[in-house]
Amino acid sequence: MGSAVARRLIDQGATVLTCLEGRSEETIARAKAAGMVPVERGALTDAELILSIVPPAEAVGVAELVAKISSGMPAPPPFIDLNAIAPKTMQAVAARFNGSRVEVLDGAIIGGPPVPGKSGPAIYISGDSGERSRRLEDYGLRVRKLDGPLGAASALKMCYAGINKGFIGLGTAVLLAASRSGAAESLKAELAESLPDVDRKLTKSIPDMYPKAYRWIAEMQEIADFLGKDDPAAEIFRGMAGVFLQLADDVKGSRALVRQLDEILGSPESAGAMVMP
Amino acid sequence: MGSAVARRLIDQGATVLTCLEGRSEETIARAKAAGMVPVERGALTDAELILSIVPPAEAVGVAELVAKISSGMPAPPPFIDLNAIAPKTMQAVAARFNGSRVEVLDGAIIGGPPVPGKSGPAIYISGDSGERSRRLEDYGLRVRKLDGPLGAASALKMCYAGINKGFIGLGTAVLLAASRSGAAESLKAELAESLPDVDRKLTKSIPDMYPKAYRWIAEMQEIADFLGKDDPAAEIFRGMAGVFLQLADDVKGSRALVRQLDEILGSPESAGAMVMP
Repeated sequence: MGSAVARRLIDQGATVLTCLEGRSEETIARAKAAGMVPVERGALTDAELILSIVPPAEAVGVAELVAKISSGMPAPPPFIDLNAIAPKTMQAVAARFNGSRVEVLDGAIIGGPPVPGKSGPAIYISGDSGERSRRLEDYGLRVRKLDGPLGAASALKMCYAGINKGFIGLGTAVLLAASRSGAAESLKAELAESLPDVDRKLTKSIPDMYPKAYRWIAEMQEIADFLGKDDPAAEIFRGMAGVFLQLADDVKGSRALVRQLDEILGSPESAGAMVMP
Repeated sequence: MGSAVARRLIDQGATVLTCLEGRSEETIARAKAAGMVPVERGALTDAELILSIVPPAEAVGVAELVAKISSGMPAPPPFIDLNAIAPKTMQAVAARFNGSRVEVLDGAIIGGPPVPGKSGPAIYISGDSGERSRRLEDYGLRVRKLDGPLGAASALKMCYAGINKGFIGLGTAVLLAASRSGAAESLKAELAESLPDVDRKLTKSIPDMYPKAYRWIAEMQEIADFLGKDDPAAEIFRGMAGVFLQLADDVKGSRALVRQLDEILGSPESAGAMVMP
């Protein structure tokens, strides 16, 4: 997502700096391909705006880093967190900037990464009374302002991901159970007939999820935290994290579950498997 | 469901006996309205076929009763369990007939109750080598045979309900969380725009669920049992049972959650509430 957002900004004429210390080879390759300019961490504050788009588990660490390099600056750039984190984690992000002059904004990206020729995801920003996100719109991103305090955009993201990714996790888990119990074929036929929207959504979204399952583990845990101890639904999302963990292990490993799912969904991998047994 | 299936059979010319000992007033009223003939428990074995359509928690008890009244008969009627129970519970149902001559069939009803003028739900029956379900088709029910042993129809039902009702539970829980965190309005707008199928399904299905929530608690627990201890997804359905328990309590009580949901979904109850604050 980070590199795709950067590419959109660059295509529209912006310069995007990035610090690649400690990032994976894939991230580094994507950053370079997108046209980002790698700099030392201290040079990030040369930017007009700092955006954080990282896996949820790294959001607080990035905030710490930015707080450190901005400390003591008379007019540091605003910091916009765009990660899929719970409102409480967003509070922890903001707390890293206590005592500094950095303006911290809570944002969330809803929808897939921007691709050339399409309008791209919606970028929600809450509490942006200073119109800091205007620059993102100037450079081709679709920004929506949210009323509400710091945390409102994070809450929206948690809820949207809870429904969208939660449904994909639910469908994945149930299709695997159907496969184990010999009910997969009749289930798929019944879904296609009586719940065609659900059938279409699962058939498309489950294979798209395989390479992302590893990232969705922490995202489901964030949603469980967001719901809180007193909400019985938190247990749903702890279970979801377990489902995506199982899938992520399978994707890196034997792909036995992926094959089962593809066989039910009629996806290419199973067609290939039939040709080459 | 039981009274609606009975009405379909009666409309097509069948006689439907029922034993109403210990049933609720509502059940008794529905049975009479449907045209069923109330009999003493012992007289149930006068039927050609015995169907069990009860809340999941009562399925084993009904099997026990039928096993008792059929015991010793040289040619007792076959028993078809049509309840939303896990394959293991279906095994427990069948075990009640050990040593008797009763043929036990595993069935499942998928779809809403039959209504006059519509074809009605699909009734799946597994292991029906003796064509026992033919009579149900003769009397206007839509029967689908399933290959597979005793338990295959129950497994299909668990999976279908897991996806369909699970999704409704997921949506309900997340909309309530959105309402608590002030994100409900923007979530609803974003769903309507980027996931219109999901938005339509939740808008229709959540209000339809309120009066059924109390029955879905045990159904979600059955699905968790069906998935088994080793499947991380079992936790998803234990959480779902908690969500429907919370809803069922609210429906009988203050209806505070129902009002929150109706307000997000734009349902009649919230419109009424706006007129009469």
